[in-house]
Amino acid sequence: MLKANVYVTLKEGVLDPQGDAVKKSLHVLEYQGVKEVRIGKFIEVCLESKDKESALRELEEMSDKLLANPVMEDYRVEIVEVE
Amino acid sequence: MLKANVYVTLKEGVLDPQGDAVKKSLHVLEYQGVKEVRIGKFIEVCLESKDKESALRELEEMSDKLLANPVMEDYRVEIVEVE
Repeated sequence: MLKANVYVTLKEGVLDPQGDAVKKSLHVLEYQGVKEVRIGKFIEVCLESKDKESALRELEEMSDKLLANPVMEDYRVEIVEVE
Repeated sequence: MLKANVYVTLKEGVLDPQGDAVKKSLHVLEYQGVKEVRIGKFIEVCLESKDKESALRELEEMSDKLLANPVMEDYRVEIVEVE
């Protein structure tokens, strides 16, 4: 069994209305120092595999096909644990 | 200016219907090796501050109050860059 994290973030230049709403709420809560907030996804995947290399390739495929929208999002895959 | 990442994840034991839906879709795409998917948030925050210690405290406060729901979510704050 293998654990991986996939970080999905909006590409630079893509507007993030959710992040802007959170920023405004933080200002209302008196956290004036907050200059920018961007919200992405943090996806934890457990895979039945022991080979890091092939798992990484497979996870990149999954990200391209389903986990991220390659038009407006970037992703980064990280293998965190192999049992 | 200081950059921080906040990782918000569902607590263990809390059901994740979104993650289950993604897992099923990955099985349909022939990734049968996927055993579990949990979906959380990855929040990037830019703060006007130079003091790591106080920024970390502030970000933990923000997470408790707004970024995470402490009843069902855990969070982890990480300072990534100080300019």
